[in-house]
Amino acid sequence: MSLKYVFRKMLPNCDNIPVTGDLDSELDFLEQIPETLEDCFKILSTEARDLYLSRTVPILDHPPTPLQFYRDYVSYNRPVLIRSAVSHWPALDLWRTNEYFRRELGSTEVTVAVTPNGLADSPVGDRFVLPEERRMKFSKFLDILENPESEPGIFYIQKQNSNLTQELPQLVEQVPELSWASQAFGKSPDAVNFWLGDKRAVTSMHKDPYENIYTVIRGYKDILLHPPTDLPWIPYRQFTQAVYKSSQDKTFSIQDIEGGETVPWICIDPLNPDLNSYPEYFNTTPIKVRVYAGETLYLPSLWFHHLSQSQGCVSVNYWYDMEFDIKYNYFNLIKNIKQLDKQNKC
Amino acid sequence: MSLKYVFRKMLPNCDNIPVTGDLDSELDFLEQIPETLEDCFKILSTEARDLYLSRTVPILDHPPTPLQFYRDYVSYNRPVLIRSAVSHWPALDLWRTNEYFRRELGSTEVTVAVTPNGLADSPVGDRFVLPEERRMKFSKFLDILENPESEPGIFYIQKQNSNLTQELPQLVEQVPELSWASQAFGKSPDAVNFWLGDKRAVTSMHKDPYENIYTVIRGYKDILLHPPTDLPWIPYRQFTQAVYKSSQDKTFSIQDIEGGETVPWICIDPLNPDLNSYPEYFNTTPIKVRVYAGETLYLPSLWFHHLSQSQGCVSVNYWYDMEFDIKYNYFNLIKNIKQLDKQNKC
Repeated sequence: MSLKYVFRKMLPNCDNIPVTGDLDSELDFLEQIPETLEDCFKILSTEARDLYLSRTVPILDHPPTPLQFYRDYVSYNRPVLIRSAVSHWPALDLWRTNEYFRRELGSTEVTVAVTPNGLADSPVGDRFVLPEERRMKFSKFLDILENPESEPGIFYIQKQNSNLTQELPQLVEQVPELSWASQAFGKSPDAVNFWLGDKRAVTSMHKDPYENIYTVIRGYKDILLHPPTDLPWIPYRQFTQAVYKSSQDKTFSIQDIEGGETVPWICIDPLNPDLNSYPEYFNTTPIKVRVYAGETLYLPSLWFHHLSQSQGCVSVNYWYDMEFDIKYNYFNLIKNIKQLDKQNKC
Repeated sequence: MSLKYVFRKMLPNCDNIPVTGDLDSELDFLEQIPETLEDCFKILSTEARDLYLSRTVPILDHPPTPLQFYRDYVSYNRPVLIRSAVSHWPALDLWRTNEYFRRELGSTEVTVAVTPNGLADSPVGDRFVLPEERRMKFSKFLDILENPESEPGIFYIQKQNSNLTQELPQLVEQVPELSWASQAFGKSPDAVNFWLGDKRAVTSMHKDPYENIYTVIRGYKDILLHPPTDLPWIPYRQFTQAVYKSSQDKTFSIQDIEGGETVPWICIDPLNPDLNSYPEYFNTTPIKVRVYAGETLYLPSLWFHHLSQSQGCVSVNYWYDMEFDIKYNYFNLIKNIKQLDKQNKC
């Protein structure tokens, strides 16, 4: 008879007592008696850390089977870094320099996000500012990337409308769908995005309703992650929507989007958090990971993430629709309670 | 460009907007603006119903693959009834009558739960009452089962300490582990329980920290289920622990367990709910399923369940340790908030 039975027997009717191997830590949880809603949220985020997350992203040397992947990472909703998942991708070799893009796609038009500061889709003051979107030949974009001083602004191919299949379909066969991922999710990807840009371009912290298979092809990406259980501590504000516009003299201004509703966005920079304004952010569990060329990150749905990168970093990510399951359902509960709490309604 | 992109584009910065195919129902959720903690919990349980549960347990004619099972049911945390998962079990034929048990196991000692009313591990008044446990020969138990009037009390083999492997190991090979389940969970079962008893014996509503693969071999079992998202509406009370004792004249009394701490247990009978005392129970989503001989129910971890049965019903269930993952973590949050709410602390 295992310890579990003893434990179960001791408390036969505490039907909600967790029965794991590690009785001590379980008993620790039992001793945490929350006095406030804040305490409840603190238990949520510390329990996540103690029970099933680690401070660093776990690493697999080889791709998991679809079942292992789904069971150990997707269902748990925790990230994993996979080495050698894409060693068969022609892109790893072909895209090592800009030469290939220039030769094969130089005259292809691409959509480029242009900002004065690298902040596309980001809060700036009390505005949420979209980038200026410019259509240009791929060769022109590469010229600017290689000589950043030649043109005002920071340039980043980052349009998340499945821009790989929409704008650069010639490249698709060089980054073929990863079968263990598609088999695990039981569906085809909803979007495949291509990312190439300046090291000064960052992606502000946000989350997506997608399971994300994110592969770096050249350079590296620095990704800062927060689990969904950190939601109570991540500050949001309402922002007026605006967009960057460059004038003929190539200076940038911010133009409000007329009739645009305000939108909620995360108002803290996780790389330089303003803890005076947002002391509750101190309760979070940031997890940092650098993804190098040839590595693939599984970035689970509803995880907050902030991205920065090396100069000329090239990445491709596959987005699979997330399941609107009990995890999503629970997450919405936290969002709703947090909203109430802010209004001091509970 | 799919509708999803349009929707995403319309609300590019509402990073927490769900993007599913069914925009109308998503927008409905957006319109539900909670004013109280109770509203938040109502959204939780109605959203569960509307998004990923149905009012009846879905049925599969054949066992799923391990991956399908894990992805579509375990990870979602929703039940499924599987027909013909055990058509290869020798037990289906051998255990059709009591004859086999009598012949092969007649002199084997088994542990039997005996109560005056069929309520083992159940609230009775302000006490939580355990059954009297009697050790008797299997043949004696069968005599009583076949002639219930011959002996006072209601008899049920229901000891949940892996009683199949502990007390009746000869039977194990007649109900072999289901490979798709063990493969899916990636582990061996933690316990295998054998159930045989009187139709007047019921199991009061509770939940287990186990993934449960529950198969009926003879007769049928009526199971009433509640998803974990109904927790806010399921009333618990503290009960003093007690146990049934029969005296020499075979009448039963209830004896308090000395030094026993009080224990929380569900204080509503879902078959006859006292809505005057517990009006909040009205907000739940009970799901009823009758599991017939040869059928297998996947009963997910942390789902509330109440069981009753046909006379002489025989069942076997495999318990697999649940994962202490984000779903467990979220469930604890609800438990903690509910506790606060009861104390009017929020």
